[in-house]
Amino acid sequence: MEHGSGGRATGDLIREIFEAQFDNDILSEMEDAAVVPGDVQIAMTTDSFVVTPLQFPGGDIGRLCICGTVNDLCMRGAIPKYITCGFILEEGADIETLRQVVKSMADTAREAGVQIVAGDTKVVDGNGGIYINTSGVGFVPKNIDIKSKNAKPGDVIIVSGNIGDHHAAILSQRMSINNTIISDNAPLQQMVSSLISANIPVHVLRDVTRGGLATVLKELSVASQLCFNIYEEKIPVDLQVESFCGLLGLDPLYMGNEGKLVAIVPQEYASQALNIIKTSKYGDKANIIGEVCAPDNVSNAGALILNTEIGGQRYLDILQGEGLPRIC
Amino acid sequence: MEHGSGGRATGDLIREIFEAQFDNDILSEMEDAAVVPGDVQIAMTTDSFVVTPLQFPGGDIGRLCICGTVNDLCMRGAIPKYITCGFILEEGADIETLRQVVKSMADTAREAGVQIVAGDTKVVDGNGGIYINTSGVGFVPKNIDIKSKNAKPGDVIIVSGNIGDHHAAILSQRMSINNTIISDNAPLQQMVSSLISANIPVHVLRDVTRGGLATVLKELSVASQLCFNIYEEKIPVDLQVESFCGLLGLDPLYMGNEGKLVAIVPQEYASQALNIIKTSKYGDKANIIGEVCAPDNVSNAGALILNTEIGGQRYLDILQGEGLPRIC
Repeated sequence: MEHGSGGRATGDLIREIFEAQFDNDILSEMEDAAVVPGDVQIAMTTDSFVVTPLQFPGGDIGRLCICGTVNDLCMRGAIPKYITCGFILEEGADIETLRQVVKSMADTAREAGVQIVAGDTKVVDGNGGIYINTSGVGFVPKNIDIKSKNAKPGDVIIVSGNIGDHHAAILSQRMSINNTIISDNAPLQQMVSSLISANIPVHVLRDVTRGGLATVLKELSVASQLCFNIYEEKIPVDLQVESFCGLLGLDPLYMGNEGKLVAIVPQEYASQALNIIKTSKYGDKANIIGEVCAPDNVSNAGALILNTEIGGQRYLDILQGEGLPRIC
Repeated sequence: MEHGSGGRATGDLIREIFEAQFDNDILSEMEDAAVVPGDVQIAMTTDSFVVTPLQFPGGDIGRLCICGTVNDLCMRGAIPKYITCGFILEEGADIETLRQVVKSMADTAREAGVQIVAGDTKVVDGNGGIYINTSGVGFVPKNIDIKSKNAKPGDVIIVSGNIGDHHAAILSQRMSINNTIISDNAPLQQMVSSLISANIPVHVLRDVTRGGLATVLKELSVASQLCFNIYEEKIPVDLQVESFCGLLGLDPLYMGNEGKLVAIVPQEYASQALNIIKTSKYGDKANIIGEVCAPDNVSNAGALILNTEIGGQRYLDILQGEGLPRIC
């Protein structure tokens, strides 16, 4: 509890754990607010991370929180710039784990090209848990207008890689199932900036997180009031994740990722966009999985239709129920 | 737990509780990141709020979190503009309490002239607690350079009102002590913008929060490596808070506020600055409590000296120990 006092112990914690890793000129001013250069148009986002366990195959809450915030900014076409982090530590939180988590944050921030410019630490009673809020600011280049409702009839739908990996990795660890599935948690700023600097007129970007691909696509089809057609056999799923899902009766379409995006682009840019994504870091398994259509009747406006491998059609809705709790 | 799924229940919660109160054009786009106009120089800050109880005399966690973030931005001379909020709800959190907290946030945001532009909700197991992270962006006018280390010898130290109120209110409620002490949680943007628009060359601003006035002033004296002299009889303390402290053996100098600031300004602007603060909302009890001196020897560099009412001198340090946990 003393580490949350705002006095001596809080200062020690900040110096020993956070400053050592997050070192930069702005943060080292140790002000409650950072003053940084701005831009004409900025993007802002916030996310709290409550994942359990804190460390999992392929990542940890530290890598996850930076990726989540970086990716949310990228999905508006922004160049991620600054991150703030707020820690809520439960009494008994392991200092060595915290140290590793903070190192992951610093490493991932470097990879993503963002600076951690302000922070805050609170301590609550509890069982040693760590919650992290990361909020971020990015700069939005002129003439960029990427948002959920911007899909147009004829657009193609690209997913940047295998779905369900993060969810399957977390669940495997919780169930002590022995496999080599690892989380896909990754920052996607390089993939997105490659699309934008190639002048692909991207209509929609969305990272595939809680709720999985189906929830995300359904939200996008509803936002545009168009009909999304996707094809089961085109949706990339890792073989091991697929058998894991088969055994447990899970549907990868509703399982979260933390390093995958959906891009919706005009048909004439489809192959160019796909190539850019496939040659980007974290995009080698990308595929075109469907297309956006004008609704042919009222019930199709906002529909998400899965065309199955055996030739059937299923209307997909957003996730019902609690899914897998505390996945991010 | 279902409210944290990212699916149907999360969407319902956001629409019913948050959207109704935080309604604005940016937020209603329902994107994971908001795109907003920027400026040449921006200030960024973050704070997590874990106060218990959630509602207390004079305020609640909702008013507190907006005030805290607004005030952190103001302390750099910024005009607060945009707030993001991240909620962590423990299972069993009372929906009616959440509704009232969210209304407080909306009311306080309106008072402070800020827009809530992005949000996030997570659910964890627990005992019905609510944690809120608020992060903020403000615009910093040209030629403004207000920071901790900028105090100069000869400057005067102003405190904007009675100290210890928030701490005393929280503690009274936890101990079920019957008095009329209320928290001072308040947004200070009007006070600060009045100082700046009157061209007062403010050197340092700092809000008095965790650790209390002594901790804050000691951090500032260390940052400038100058010697701060303050005078006990000039420090404003509400009579009821003073007797409460006397009974419990508490020192108001180490008790947190949530709506008070310290301003350090050149001596020649002292009375003008004091008048501006005294005529601002929340500043009527402001007083000049001391001055900044060049250190006359090595041990005085960074010292904070309290000149007591009976003519003695005490060197004050930052708060040791845990103070009152979960005060903000």
